Amino acid sequence: MTAALAAVAAAATTYVDDLAEFVRVPSVSTVPDHRPDIDAAADWVAARLGRAGVADVRVLPTKGHPVVVGRLHHDPALRTVIVYGHYDVQPPEPLELWDSPPFEPDRREGRLYGRGASDDKAGVLIAIQAVEAYLGSGSKPPVNVTFLIEGEEEIGSPNLQHFIREHRDLLAADLAISADGGIYAPGVPSVTVGSRGLAGVELEVTGASADLHSGMYGGAVANPLMALARILASMQDPDGTVLVEGFYDGIPPLDQGVRDELARVPDDEASELRALGLDGWWGVPAYTPRERRNVRPTLEVNGMGGGFQGRGIKTVLPREAKAKITCRLVVGQDPQDIVEKLRAHVAKVTPPGVGVTLTPLAGSGWAYQMPVEHAALAVASDSLEAVYGRPAFPVWTGGTVPVAEQFQRLLGVWCLYFAFGEPDNNIHAPNEFFRIPTLQQGTEATVRLLAGLAASPNAFEPPA
Amino acid sequence: MTAALAAVAAAATTYVDDLAEFVRVPSVSTVPDHRPDIDAAADWVAARLGRAGVADVRVLPTKGHPVVVGRLHHDPALRTVIVYGHYDVQPPEPLELWDSPPFEPDRREGRLYGRGASDDKAGVLIAIQAVEAYLGSGSKPPVNVTFLIEGEEEIGSPNLQHFIREHRDLLAADLAISADGGIYAPGVPSVTVGSRGLAGVELEVTGASADLHSGMYGGAVANPLMALARILASMQDPDGTVLVEGFYDGIPPLDQGVRDELARVPDDEASELRALGLDGWWGVPAYTPRERRNVRPTLEVNGMGGGFQGRGIKTVLPREAKAKITCRLVVGQDPQDIVEKLRAHVAKVTPPGVGVTLTPLAGSGWAYQMPVEHAALAVASDSLEAVYGRPAFPVWTGGTVPVAEQFQRLLGVWCLYFAFGEPDNNIHAPNEFFRIPTLQQGTEATVRLLAGLAASPNAFEPPA
Repeated sequence: MTAALAAVAAAATTYVDDLAEFVRVPSVSTVPDHRPDIDAAADWVAARLGRAGVADVRVLPTKGHPVVVGRLHHDPALRTVIVYGHYDVQPPEPLELWDSPPFEPDRREGRLYGRGASDDKAGVLIAIQAVEAYLGSGSKPPVNVTFLIEGEEEIGSPNLQHFIREHRDLLAADLAISADGGIYAPGVPSVTVGSRGLAGVELEVTGASADLHSGMYGGAVANPLMALARILASMQDPDGTVLVEGFYDGIPPLDQGVRDELARVPDDEASELRALGLDGWWGVPAYTPRERRNVRPTLEVNGMGGGFQGRGIKTVLPREAKAKITCRLVVGQDPQDIVEKLRAHVAKVTPPGVGVTLTPLAGSGWAYQMPVEHAALAVASDSLEAVYGRPAFPVWTGGTVPVAEQFQRLLGVWCLYFAFGEPDNNIHAPNEFFRIPTLQQGTEATVRLLAGLAASPNAFEPPA
Repeated sequence: MTAALAAVAAAATTYVDDLAEFVRVPSVSTVPDHRPDIDAAADWVAARLGRAGVADVRVLPTKGHPVVVGRLHHDPALRTVIVYGHYDVQPPEPLELWDSPPFEPDRREGRLYGRGASDDKAGVLIAIQAVEAYLGSGSKPPVNVTFLIEGEEEIGSPNLQHFIREHRDLLAADLAISADGGIYAPGVPSVTVGSRGLAGVELEVTGASADLHSGMYGGAVANPLMALARILASMQDPDGTVLVEGFYDGIPPLDQGVRDELARVPDDEASELRALGLDGWWGVPAYTPRERRNVRPTLEVNGMGGGFQGRGIKTVLPREAKAKITCRLVVGQDPQDIVEKLRAHVAKVTPPGVGVTLTPLAGSGWAYQMPVEHAALAVASDSLEAVYGRPAFPVWTGGTVPVAEQFQRLLGVWCLYFAFGEPDNNIHAPNEFFRIPTLQQGTEATVRLLAGLAASPNAFEPPA
């Protein structure tokens, strides 16, 4: 490991050039026009793996974007880790809010600016660089490594589950590592141990077959906007409690250990609220704001609309209204089951005079929860502490990263989050950036992680 | 009158050319770019009045678009009627749905197609042609006539009230006639005796200062979309009863005579419902659908929106949500008072965690109701029956035509609707048209109306 760390120190000045080259590929996965860039990014990753010394590299097709698999399986006696990341990026719009063009990486103030710089191109590179450091210093990584770098994360990984299932043998491992994710704050390391699941539906409420004049028909034809408002309002108490029947079924009581860890997260709530322009938190009073954000399920309306939304007045009685609803789920909730419960609720509360269509939204996923006492977490914490100079602590993300639960379910391994995005990196927003020194820190920490895992057999203990 | 009717018959073939010339002026009032066309349309009306023989014609400025006033006051011993119409038109969009260009009038199937052909350029011309018929046949109209043709009807007549107040002497009359309006069905004459008022507000519900990630903040920050849904749903029972406190205050019970007249309106409800794609009517069960549409107050959401409304999924917790609400009012309700009642209601039901701004919408107006037994209505009915060959019956419009109530309040006269738009004319929609024979029918009926009014002193009885 010492030699590998030295190799990192020696190579570190080149990391940012690599990241810039990678960011220059506009691999936006949501836009069909970018398909050539998607392929170029997959090829770029494959070439980079080859340059790092990974000999078995394949760009494998899916129904959508290709998956890059790189295998460095040099010793069958060693444990195998599978490293997950993604080469696709969010769309850069709105372009006018960027201070430098999103796909012309710009170095300023010790940062590299560009779409994907943090999410997840730096993550992919840090993992490759760590393996490269071992190989370049005349040693081998102390574990076998499989890279699984996909190109559809930003569109909900629609083909990943099928891909993992189809390539179970190729991807077999003892532990997964997600290079997609982040730490608590710049310079403040943490290890993510859980994420929420997701289930979403779109509602379309329809009334008459055309928009009507509210003067001619108002009062005698049901208004889909009002009906939609009624349906939505019926789903949740004003305090945040979800009123959909059975929504909380199967959720175990919050583990006291988890509550204790969450209470230790060093939130500065006052400054956070100030930044959000809020007087206080909102939500189910029985739980702390941090618990509500991380380990309790939610129901949110993400968008709704219908009728005349321009300036001024138009006295229309609209023919339809739409809403998108997503629920964040916790362990014990099945995304498909939640969709059916939403369907039953909507059927029950739909007022007279309108029809409702409910369509499940793509991107659903299960919640994920790694045991807080798992040995791999201790190794991860130690690796981070050695680099950051302060202990890492467990955190939960309220977001959804379906891949962790998929590794658990399909490959029978835990997924350890080990990633370096920082909350201020503007991911999914204009002026995304990554801190240049973090490229070296992350690579050093990953070198340490691989060594630490190899030295800790319990770290590979699979889910029960 | 006989000579005037003969003059109509002689001139009738030229009417459609005049209408086509008028329609060719794209006098769209909502779009500032059309200001030169607005002025051209006002000048066109002024010239047309002059050509008809009206000597005192003025194009008078307002803060917005000019008003054309033409006065033919040939005998101080005669009663004076003031004829209202408008030269401005709705925007033609969506252009792709027109079968012929909206401002290149096209004759086909006995109709003239073009934006404004029915609303209200034919109306304006029919009234002018009737006066012209008297003057051109060597006689004079049996009443003095003032024309008041405005250019802001399609944007809610923001300057008309002030204009009438400022020019009370110039506009003094014994009865007003609205040349803007219509009949029950093609070939089925009716006389409009009432219209509903209007009061509207826009709600803006705000939460955090920016759109948030629903994974990071869902469950701990109030969602403005859900809050808006809750506010809207609180305003109305599922059956249509408005729950805003005091909303129905001051409304007298429905007059039995009015209910009887409404029950006689020859609706073909089955075919109307079929055309609307509906299984049945909706609304407060204590009233018939026709009553709900015409003489009972309503509350409608005309538009609402917020958050992500594109395709697919975006797990945003939006910063704001908006809705536009308009109420149709009946006699006894004050539009400003209704706005304040909505304001009080919203303040009472706004859930925790969000702020709400309520802004009154422009275009408010009072309801109008002429006594069904007024002598002017009998004259109007007789005039229509003489032309259409069947008796006219009273109808109410559920829409809002603030000018009628303004004549009543500001000039102390009733406003008799005498207009020839047909419900299938596609006003405010693509392929607006006017039936060419109706130009002659309407002119003949108006010639008869002026003679009938002059012969019926009770027809000028003012409001109490």
